[in-house]
Amino acid sequence: MKPAIKYYWEDFHVGRTIESGNIPISEEEIVHFARQYDPQPFHIDKAAAADSSFGGIVASGWHTCSLAMRLICDSYLLEAASNGSPGIEKLQWLKPVRPGDTLQLRVRVLESRLSASKPTIGLVRSQWQMFNQDNECVMSMEGYSMIRRRQTA
Amino acid sequence: MKPAIKYYWEDFHVGRTIESGNIPISEEEIVHFARQYDPQPFHIDKAAAADSSFGGIVASGWHTCSLAMRLICDSYLLEAASNGSPGIEKLQWLKPVRPGDTLQLRVRVLESRLSASKPTIGLVRSQWQMFNQDNECVMSMEGYSMIRRRQTA
Repeated sequence: MKPAIKYYWEDFHVGRTIESGNIPISEEEIVHFARQYDPQPFHIDKAAAADSSFGGIVASGWHTCSLAMRLICDSYLLEAASNGSPGIEKLQWLKPVRPGDTLQLRVRVLESRLSASKPTIGLVRSQWQMFNQDNECVMSMEGYSMIRRRQTA
Repeated sequence: MKPAIKYYWEDFHVGRTIESGNIPISEEEIVHFARQYDPQPFHIDKAAAADSSFGGIVASGWHTCSLAMRLICDSYLLEAASNGSPGIEKLQWLKPVRPGDTLQLRVRVLESRLSASKPTIGLVRSQWQMFNQDNECVMSMEGYSMIRRRQTA
């Protein structure tokens, strides 16, 4: 079932902050994702990872991005009039994400404007910061979201 | 088994271009990835996607990124002295990726320098462009890779 839309472009005003729920990440999930999409030894091979500069298995950065997306979906995006995203700026993988970590995303709206070409759509630029259980920022990026405007009579 | 290392930082000189192999993307894979990481209706629900501005199911942008990473691994990274990546700039999702598309990545080295803090590591900035079977660029980004230097006697 399609979830009901509660949030429109107007709801994402500059300065708004949103904290997601928590999501754990296991070694099994890290290895499973990486075998399919990023099979570098420090993501999939315990012995090779221990020998690497990471000192143990770490999650693919794309896995961390994908989990951030899931946290955004669950926090608000599935209830928002989302029209997708044109892209991301300044994606930084700041600290390794390791098996057993628990991740949380904090979102802050940096900029909001209407689309020049599509009058029913607004563009929201947000900072996404992913933290681990020790409150270390493991990933940061600025994401763009296209969100439909609330229709007024 | 850990693959043998063939490529070091010195091999990624500015201007070098690499074309990956092709990778197909199916509706089943798009929906499977999105159910786990990006369950927006236009990624997982055929009817809702048909009603959306995309006009049908499209892949999560993070899925496209993950497939780009896989193509990079298979093209050269698994045989390179990779030390991971600090991040990405200017990630743009330019065209929808749809079920049945076949994707190929073209990589071009834009910049190469030694790490200021770690003398055994070099930093390579590359443009990654993903194309579909109609030679449309569906995604573009600038990725940073940390790669160890070749040890000389």
